[in-house]
Amino acid sequence: MQKGQNVIIASDVLLGDNVTIGNNVVIYEGTIIGNNVIIQDNAVIGKQPTRAKASILPDVKKLPPAKIGSGVTVGTSAIIYANAEIGDDVFIADLATVRERVTVGEKTIVGRGVAIENDCTVGNRCKLETNCYITAYSKLGNNVFVAPCVVTTNDNFMGRTKERLDKFKGVTVKDGGRIGANVTVLPGKVIHEDGTVAAGSIVSRDVKSESLVVGSPAKEIRKVPDEQLLRNQ
Amino acid sequence: MQKGQNVIIASDVLLGDNVTIGNNVVIYEGTIIGNNVIIQDNAVIGKQPTRAKASILPDVKKLPPAKIGSGVTVGTSAIIYANAEIGDDVFIADLATVRERVTVGEKTIVGRGVAIENDCTVGNRCKLETNCYITAYSKLGNNVFVAPCVVTTNDNFMGRTKERLDKFKGVTVKDGGRIGANVTVLPGKVIHEDGTVAAGSIVSRDVKSESLVVGSPAKEIRKVPDEQLLRNQ
Amino acid sequence: MQKGQNVIIASDVLLGDNVTIGNNVVIYEGTIIGNNVIIQDNAVIGKQPTRAKASILPDVKKLPPAKIGSGVTVGTSAIIYANAEIGDDVFIADLATVRERVTVGEKTIVGRGVAIENDCTVGNRCKLETNCYITAYSKLGNNVFVAPCVVTTNDNFMGRTKERLDKFKGVTVKDGGRIGANVTVLPGKVIHEDGTVAAGSIVSRDVKSESLVVGSPAKEIRKVPDEQLLRNQ
Repeated sequence: MQKGQNVIIASDVLLGDNVTIGNNVVIYEGTIIGNNVIIQDNAVIGKQPTRAKASILPDVKKLPPAKIGSGVTVGTSAIIYANAEIGDDVFIADLATVRERVTVGEKTIVGRGVAIENDCTVGNRCKLETNCYITAYSKLGNNVFVAPCVVTTNDNFMGRTKERLDKFKGVTVKDGGRIGANVTVLPGKVIHEDGTVAAGSIVSRDVKSESLVVGSPAKEIRKVPDEQLLRNQ
Repeated sequence: MQKGQNVIIASDVLLGDNVTIGNNVVIYEGTIIGNNVIIQDNAVIGKQPTRAKASILPDVKKLPPAKIGSGVTVGTSAIIYANAEIGDDVFIADLATVRERVTVGEKTIVGRGVAIENDCTVGNRCKLETNCYITAYSKLGNNVFVAPCVVTTNDNFMGRTKERLDKFKGVTVKDGGRIGANVTVLPGKVIHEDGTVAAGSIVSRDVKSESLVVGSPAKEIRKVPDEQLLRNQ
Repeated sequence: MQKGQNVIIASDVLLGDNVTIGNNVVIYEGTIIGNNVIIQDNAVIGKQPTRAKASILPDVKKLPPAKIGSGVTVGTSAIIYANAEIGDDVFIADLATVRERVTVGEKTIVGRGVAIENDCTVGNRCKLETNCYITAYSKLGNNVFVAPCVVTTNDNFMGRTKERLDKFKGVTVKDGGRIGANVTVLPGKVIHEDGTVAAGSIVSRDVKSESLVVGSPAKEIRKVPDEQLLRNQ
């Protein structure tokens, strides 16, 4: 292990072979870290969630530890919560946060400043680009592309009515789905396989497989070009 | 007090009972911290502002310290400036910043990555969700809901003319006002009581009380449903 | 030199006169820092890039160090990569990141949370406001104004086809160009001298000199008012 200065690692953390840890890193109790992992300066791993006193979410119990696969990089000042599971060869860039009960599949890239909220599933070989926002309870398949600064939402009631508490619904992006820069996706919407949303659009209806949608609200303008389909890569 | 490692607390900081302080936390001189406060790893509290040499704002004098109410949580890598006043039971999430001369009312939630710029007033029981941006000189009432990645602005002149220096104007959101995800609010606009803006809209005119507006520019499409009005919660 | 606690400075770093360094700061080998520089808590300077295993970019060699001009401020938790060159009197705010092979001209302000990706050129006296996103391979002239939360893009193929690897193209903003809040600029687009984009627009065509464009897609609605032209400031 290579280790920087001012590092704080709980005594029961399990570290694989050839792990590199930067300066000022904090790793909480029980965290499991694979081989060849790089953790950069100021990263915090295995943090237990704290509930806001005014939160509408249920009280939290102590969660199981975070698991970090082999070959993972965790960037500077990134934060990974307890009970997150990060697959092999995932790259988590600077200032990203991955919340509790999130799984991230192998070889996925989580860009700079990305926030993946609680209870999300992200598949393999996805690219979540700089500053995109993945709302709680979302499901992303494999090879999903989320461009910079995409915004996803899960609350159609904007914080009102008790009824909504049963109805939070994240977004679903099936294998090969792609979302352009600064797109807004409304709660519960589904982007089907290879469905593609042009930059700046607002997605208020599900997007069909291999359909390219544009605008506000986003409508199909044509099919995704063959050479861009996942099966043709 | 529970205290992590590498913590730096100025000698004259006033700490309440039962305060929990994480690792690598920095608390500047004179900061007043209430009872039962939780300050997480890498947070910086009471930072004096530094003026850019090319700033158009007046030179800064040393400001009074930050005040943090009882029951407050300050998240990992959050930054709170001097002369900020944080009410009781406020939750400030990871990577949020609260600038100087900002007051945040009790039980408000300041989400992950939120930036509240200088000279803002935020009321009680607001929810400012992940990555939303509250421009300088804004006034938010009580029970205001700001969805993820909302953008507010205060400069109609986009950095040109001397005239503009007198005309910076933040946004105003009255009690119960709600702004949907990725909305853009233009300088000086007012969202009246229970006024609601649909996701992705651009607000270029004031929004009337209990009016639901949509689009670019945002126009009223109907009244806010009764069951979503603040008085019916 | 004034120096905080827990500071980690590589032995061969070159420090000018009257440098102020906050707590928990990390400065990597070879970094060159001018006179009167202020580096705030938790900042990381001179970080070598790490390539994602699934990255489409070529493998990285060890880069030359970062150079920080005189009079520069680097904010709390800001991150500056190796081979970045920061001009005199630049202000880099909290939580901003400046990647490798970026040059930032003198007196430019890089706002809170701004990300300037790799291989960008930013001129003198620009204002890049809070949370704006400058995509890789972009070129910004002098006196460019980028409002909060602007999104720029460089990949028309959204992560598909090999062909695209030759075609990444950042955005170009010529001297005096201005981009309003939450605007989306598509790959390769050029905003000519004093061209101005209204807030919330989507730029899918080049913007002519002194033209004010609005909408989605953005179209000219009038000329920029004389008193706002750069030459009249």
